[in-house]
Amino acid sequence: MEALVTTTRDVRVRNRFEVLRQLYRSGDVSRREIADASGLSFASVCNLVGELLALGVARETRFEDSGGGRPRGRVTVNAGYGALVGVDIAETYVQLQLFDLSLGLLASAGRDLHPEDNTPALVVSHVAAALSEALQAAGLERAGILGAGVSLPGQVQREKGVSVFAPNWGWHDVAFGDLLADALEVPVYLDNPLKASTTAELWFGVGRQHQDFAVITLGTGVGAGLALGGSLYRGSSNSAGEWGHTRLVLDGRVCRCGGSGCVEAYVGAPGILQHLRDRAPDSPLLRPDDQTASLNALALAADAGDPVALAVLTDTARYLGAGLADLVNLLNPEVVILSGWVTDRLGSLLLPEVRIAVGRHALRRPFEATRIQLCQVPEPVALGAGTLALEGFLAGIGAVTARPGAPADPAHLPTARPAP
Amino acid sequence: MEALVTTTRDVRVRNRFEVLRQLYRSGDVSRREIADASGLSFASVCNLVGELLALGVARETRFEDSGGGRPRGRVTVNAGYGALVGVDIAETYVQLQLFDLSLGLLASAGRDLHPEDNTPALVVSHVAAALSEALQAAGLERAGILGAGVSLPGQVQREKGVSVFAPNWGWHDVAFGDLLADALEVPVYLDNPLKASTTAELWFGVGRQHQDFAVITLGTGVGAGLALGGSLYRGSSNSAGEWGHTRLVLDGRVCRCGGSGCVEAYVGAPGILQHLRDRAPDSPLLRPDDQTASLNALALAADAGDPVALAVLTDTARYLGAGLADLVNLLNPEVVILSGWVTDRLGSLLLPEVRIAVGRHALRRPFEATRIQLCQVPEPVALGAGTLALEGFLAGIGAVTARPGAPADPAHLPTARPAP
Repeated sequence: MEALVTTTRDVRVRNRFEVLRQLYRSGDVSRREIADASGLSFASVCNLVGELLALGVARETRFEDSGGGRPRGRVTVNAGYGALVGVDIAETYVQLQLFDLSLGLLASAGRDLHPEDNTPALVVSHVAAALSEALQAAGLERAGILGAGVSLPGQVQREKGVSVFAPNWGWHDVAFGDLLADALEVPVYLDNPLKASTTAELWFGVGRQHQDFAVITLGTGVGAGLALGGSLYRGSSNSAGEWGHTRLVLDGRVCRCGGSGCVEAYVGAPGILQHLRDRAPDSPLLRPDDQTASLNALALAADAGDPVALAVLTDTARYLGAGLADLVNLLNPEVVILSGWVTDRLGSLLLPEVRIAVGRHALRRPFEATRIQLCQVPEPVALGAGTLALEGFLAGIGAVTARPGAPADPAHLPTARPAP
Repeated sequence: MEALVTTTRDVRVRNRFEVLRQLYRSGDVSRREIADASGLSFASVCNLVGELLALGVARETRFEDSGGGRPRGRVTVNAGYGALVGVDIAETYVQLQLFDLSLGLLASAGRDLHPEDNTPALVVSHVAAALSEALQAAGLERAGILGAGVSLPGQVQREKGVSVFAPNWGWHDVAFGDLLADALEVPVYLDNPLKASTTAELWFGVGRQHQDFAVITLGTGVGAGLALGGSLYRGSSNSAGEWGHTRLVLDGRVCRCGGSGCVEAYVGAPGILQHLRDRAPDSPLLRPDDQTASLNALALAADAGDPVALAVLTDTARYLGAGLADLVNLLNPEVVILSGWVTDRLGSLLLPEVRIAVGRHALRRPFEATRIQLCQVPEPVALGAGTLALEGFLAGIGAVTARPGAPADPAHLPTARPAP
């Protein structure tokens, strides 16, 4: 951020988030419990809860006996208030999820992206088609949507909804947010998968227990989402987390960023397949022009005990461990979470060797303070994108205009399954 | 931090800091200006200022015309309320500074530490002697001291005041804080130079303008203090910032941490002298067993255009730039500040080539968002240690017991020169 000045409104929005996060964390909670858990004063909590009730975003569930005094109301998220959309746009697919306000899943729809589907207009059309499909499946009107969070690979300028650089598609400064908002006719909140999956962990994963953690995305690209002090850390221009482009080997392999020796060049999908090529140039596991199939074949072979595949995983774990040790030394996190589609394929095979490699490279004290684990949140990018839409919606609602007792008209969503 | 729960007291202390930082930043400020700059509500600011006035920590300076309404009082730090001590203990010296409550310098005293002065008891005796000398110079009683902040090299467990590991002295788990508090008879707040110099920058340096920055200490050891989102980032066990032990060269030079290829092994004082030894094993610039003299000779030779010395600086800038690029990519800071005694000697010679090297290794967008500069705060470790004592004192004062109008008895310090 450029200036130190935060406004009273910022503080109000931050406190509103804090109260909401307690509702999402607990499902059903009293004002006193929110105050105890959030550090806000009881009076502030009562004000903020009153506001959320008046807006219709929260609702009272039941009153419990307070032991002689006035019965205490318990509060929960008003799931039926409106819908949120989370979209995970990756190099090879679009995955869209439709949520109620409690981030319970209502419907989902997906599209494959072929290598030629690389223009902004084509990607927009796929997202629009997936949204129509999901709305139909859920029996919902578009008017019930409060916002769509959209994760796009690469570097994103979120305030302006601009894709600054999407390396695999060669996009530079594409006003993707505007294009998509025009097509979907809903507010769009654009960010990248590192920020989305870390937001999902903050609200629904390790963030319920921990303040300082890194969410590592291993895919075609590689990066780290950083939650520091209980909040998503974005850096001064929203590009924090480019761990994939930190140096692992000075003057090492050429990386697609133009640099050399980057972490990504050794532990991203193309880097892992390069280890395989280095060991066995003619390996039958290498499927021409199909990285996903090659990775799957590698995982199956390793599962079956194939020595070349196991050696490739050892190579990968060694580089990954060295790169993670740098994160552990620099940031002293409580947890490092491995996520992304390469982790889905290889994570459980890699994890034991990665832990050993981190221990070999990291300082003893921060290593002992850090847990390394696989992501437990399902579809974290789409869920996190939906959560970014929730945050955007909450930040956008202004002063309370509805009177208490006259809540804003909810969108009457069908009952959703509970949030993951 | 282990738990997410912050207490109302934490919030109160944090808000008190916020108000105090406005006083230190502005010298003399109205309640309205504090509210505007801090984002706290006017009512909260009035409460907090009232508390600080009642405690005697702040005082009202003058009333200004508010244009018809009630005249507005301006508030400042009550410099004479009590004294603070900041101690910079390094491998080769002890530097102690005595401050008034506004962090204005009252007196300072130093001691050289010889290689044999490496027991905790000897270091304590040097600090105690320096404090007595400074108190005498300032004409102050020990009873006027509110606390002493002490920076010790290596890893520190601050809550318990324990030196977990001081590599150069071979200290492991030394309860140095208790030893020193017993000897000095004042509360001691122990931390390391990374945390101290970053605290100084937060209160008195780039922190006045920026939220996200890294303070690089280049000395015998190397590390980074991290200010993220306007606060010192400590990590889960106060060891965040071990940038000196992130990997620059996989399987590279052996580092004193036991690892290999660490940043410190290439840009710490011994690493820089190793570049010199690699290029000119018999260089007359190398003074046997005197690292400081060798560094000084290298700086003088480079200033005079000596080609070997210039080549060594180019080597150093290249490694330093690659290491800083990793920080820039990962944390996307607004500013990177170079500090520490090696920077004092070589910083202005290194800076132009370092900037070029960072630009070569970092991603374009975060690089363009980052300024790289030399530290402008004088004696940042001692000043930062004094500020840590201030923070400790402020966190420790409890509920207001003094009535407004009956301020706590100030220590009647002599007039200090303004804070740097």
